[in-house]
Amino acid sequence: MTTSPKTQSLNDNDFPSPINDRYFEDYTAGEVYEYGYRAVTQEEIVAFAHQFDPQSIHTDPVAAAQGPFGGIIASGWHSAGILMRLFADHYLSHVASLASPGIDELRWTTPLRPADELWLRTTIIEARPSRTKPDRGLVTTRAELFNTENDKVMGILAMNILRRRNFDSR
Amino acid sequence: MTTSPKTQSLNDNDFPSPINDRYFEDYTAGEVYEYGYRAVTQEEIVAFAHQFDPQSIHTDPVAAAQGPFGGIIASGWHSAGILMRLFADHYLSHVASLASPGIDELRWTTPLRPADELWLRTTIIEARPSRTKPDRGLVTTRAELFNTENDKVMGILAMNILRRRNFDSR
Repeated sequence: MTTSPKTQSLNDNDFPSPINDRYFEDYTAGEVYEYGYRAVTQEEIVAFAHQFDPQSIHTDPVAAAQGPFGGIIASGWHSAGILMRLFADHYLSHVASLASPGIDELRWTTPLRPADELWLRTTIIEARPSRTKPDRGLVTTRAELFNTENDKVMGILAMNILRRRNFDSR
Repeated sequence: MTTSPKTQSLNDNDFPSPINDRYFEDYTAGEVYEYGYRAVTQEEIVAFAHQFDPQSIHTDPVAAAQGPFGGIIASGWHSAGILMRLFADHYLSHVASLASPGIDELRWTTPLRPADELWLRTTIIEARPSRTKPDRGLVTTRAELFNTENDKVMGILAMNILRRRNFDSR
């Protein structure tokens, strides 16, 4: 797994541990971290849409120019993929992530357009040990993707199951 | 916009109107429709993950074989893209879809594996006219993606804003 070279933490506050040595205990409710930037091209937007969401507003620049947004916008699922890439590169442990049961409250609030540069804000809402499996815990994160003008493109409430540090040796 | 040639309605119940002449009024709460099938290859799973979700369980067959799932599984966002493709090809009007405010209750329940053939079940939960804009309405849909063994891969509660039929001429 490689980290995208163009992206990095955007401020001084970041995890106490590097992503390759990060466990459930390193996720503290209330902490806010920010990472960026990633851009998308119109070609990438159109290619994604042809594969997964072939609505003309995502695939056809001429039709999209006449539409409600005045041009091509990315599929909301493409926005979600970009959010996930920043989340995977910088936030989600590379050694302790076990699974994600799902997502709540996914909202698309501003269209993602070609050449937008996106950044991610993560806010840890809750981190609680599993009630049934002592080797892991559930982390709930508000993850928000913003564009260059700091308009919120989308937000999700993510659930991730993470392994506890050194559990085997206790 | 083209419809994937391999996919079709899976049973006798389908919309009363074709997807190119389908409006808000054609979405009736309680109706259930099913469409399929779409397959994914390991190469597609790995390529998607390299772009959007580069965790080794999605990108590295050797590492994934040692992991909790015994092999490569698709990123949950790839599963969502396949769900969306069937949804866009067969369910969501090609002429009246205005926007989607978001998704609730996204749950990943069974891993998607290479060569799985996926199908979609849509259940219309609610269809209500907009309170503020008389030309449109909000349709809420439970969309569920299943694999070849009819295990539920994922589910979402989707919101879609759709134009009403012939509103301009009333």
